[in-house]
Amino acid sequence: METPTRSRLDALRQVTAAVDRWRGDDRATTSDELVAEEPLEVRALARVDGHASAETLAVIMRTPGHDDELAAGFLFSEGLLRARDELAELVPGADPDGLPSDNVIDVVAAPHVDIVARMRESGYSRQFAVNASCGVCGKNSVAAACATLPPLPDDALRLAPAVLCALPDRLRAGQQVFAHTGGLHAAGLFDTSGNLLALREDVGRHNAVDKLVGRALLDNALPLSQRVLLVSGRLSFEIVLKALAAGIPLIAAVSAPSSLAADLAQASNITLVGFLRGASFNIYTHPWRVAPQASG
Amino acid sequence: METPTRSRLDALRQVTAAVDRWRGDDRATTSDELVAEEPLEVRALARVDGHASAETLAVIMRTPGHDDELAAGFLFSEGLLRARDELAELVPGADPDGLPSDNVIDVVAAPHVDIVARMRESGYSRQFAVNASCGVCGKNSVAAACATLPPLPDDALRLAPAVLCALPDRLRAGQQVFAHTGGLHAAGLFDTSGNLLALREDVGRHNAVDKLVGRALLDNALPLSQRVLLVSGRLSFEIVLKALAAGIPLIAAVSAPSSLAADLAQASNITLVGFLRGASFNIYTHPWRVAPQASG
Repeated sequence: METPTRSRLDALRQVTAAVDRWRGDDRATTSDELVAEEPLEVRALARVDGHASAETLAVIMRTPGHDDELAAGFLFSEGLLRARDELAELVPGADPDGLPSDNVIDVVAAPHVDIVARMRESGYSRQFAVNASCGVCGKNSVAAACATLPPLPDDALRLAPAVLCALPDRLRAGQQVFAHTGGLHAAGLFDTSGNLLALREDVGRHNAVDKLVGRALLDNALPLSQRVLLVSGRLSFEIVLKALAAGIPLIAAVSAPSSLAADLAQASNITLVGFLRGASFNIYTHPWRVAPQASG
Repeated sequence: METPTRSRLDALRQVTAAVDRWRGDDRATTSDELVAEEPLEVRALARVDGHASAETLAVIMRTPGHDDELAAGFLFSEGLLRARDELAELVPGADPDGLPSDNVIDVVAAPHVDIVARMRESGYSRQFAVNASCGVCGKNSVAAACATLPPLPDDALRLAPAVLCALPDRLRAGQQVFAHTGGLHAAGLFDTSGNLLALREDVGRHNAVDKLVGRALLDNALPLSQRVLLVSGRLSFEIVLKALAAGIPLIAAVSAPSSLAADLAQASNITLVGFLRGASFNIYTHPWRVAPQASG
């Protein structure tokens, strides 16, 4: 398939803007680099009897780049794709005029999978719920998540505190874009020796994690039972939900977790680390995975 | 209406959690305060011929508190409520067992307004789009926003640099919860003399702005043409979209704006200030509203 504009994507991660820079009473007109933010429309593409039809599944505000991973990871996190073999193809989409668009991606599911039907049945609809029977809020949302996703096993993953404390510097070293603009969230996937295996950045906190999980799905590497996830900022319920779906047993954040993030981690047998800074950190749930005697 | 659990809301903004605190090799079991995060289900409640029916409009992960403002502001930002008189009532909701729930809020629209129909027609559906004809992404999303929301007028609002630079400290002084947990985004609404008129916090960046806008809608104070919005973190397209809908001509952020945030501000005649720290700031669009000779 011809995708003439795809090569623009990396360049689009930053945009140069004119800016009035004030420093005290000094004022100068200069330029600044801004993080790119664009909407990505993820559509389910069905081909029946030679006719193609596309239905919008999601519109995600994101930083362009790794869009195939984002689409795959988002659909996996939402339960609309459950395994690598349920995904037949990711196709660059077209705008309403039929021209190729960097901001549209079409998902072709395997013949036995109906993504649109799953979306309609989904109890985990996003902010704009499509169905009237959400029940997430009236009930207990942690219980609702656990009903769909069982707790992780008492696996063999253990991590030494020194390895844990080394992760933020390695994440930052990998964040070239962040160094330029200061506007991106980062998520990194590490092995138990503290090696950075993959790093994704995005203007949206959840997107960076979806990109990592999507990469693993595309590589048929799920579940990530021997991996550690580090996020650059705060830790929400949704991040833990995404890690749980991907089978990641240890999540660390540079900043604070929310109450519901800790609740879900507790119920799901996930180790949750917050405020990981220098030689200090807090473990909110299942601290037994962090052990001084653990070797990488 | 009896709302026996409503009084718990303020207490719910923070939750105490047990934590393993590591400082170098020192390890202690102690407690930590986490920011509360809970889902809020916003439902459209219709009463026809004595029968009540509720349809889910949105599920918003948020920090409990000011939920009536959040619901009102969210619906306004999304174009589902367009004026104060379109809203008849906000009613504490019930869970599936009929018990009052802090996490469900029912919106009763005025008789001439069909919120559910508007949601189905909406071109600005959120991540989980309900309709197949989004078009936001294939087209230009800034153009799509401007087609719905005209640019703001060249109003009389001017702000002195010294007033602008004083805002972050005033926001921080108002953030009691932030001081405790480090986990909350804040948004503040100021007058042109730099007085903090309202401050809202939330685990979700957009929610804090929705709460401010919702308060203004409930007070019938829209548009906010003589107000300045300051957000504690980064500035996304959606924040500018919410400010545009509310008629706020000047938006400032402590951190970086995204490219699309700057594009929409430029097209909408909104002044966008970023990296507002100490005596320094960058103006990305329409710098004429910031003028040394402006008085409060």
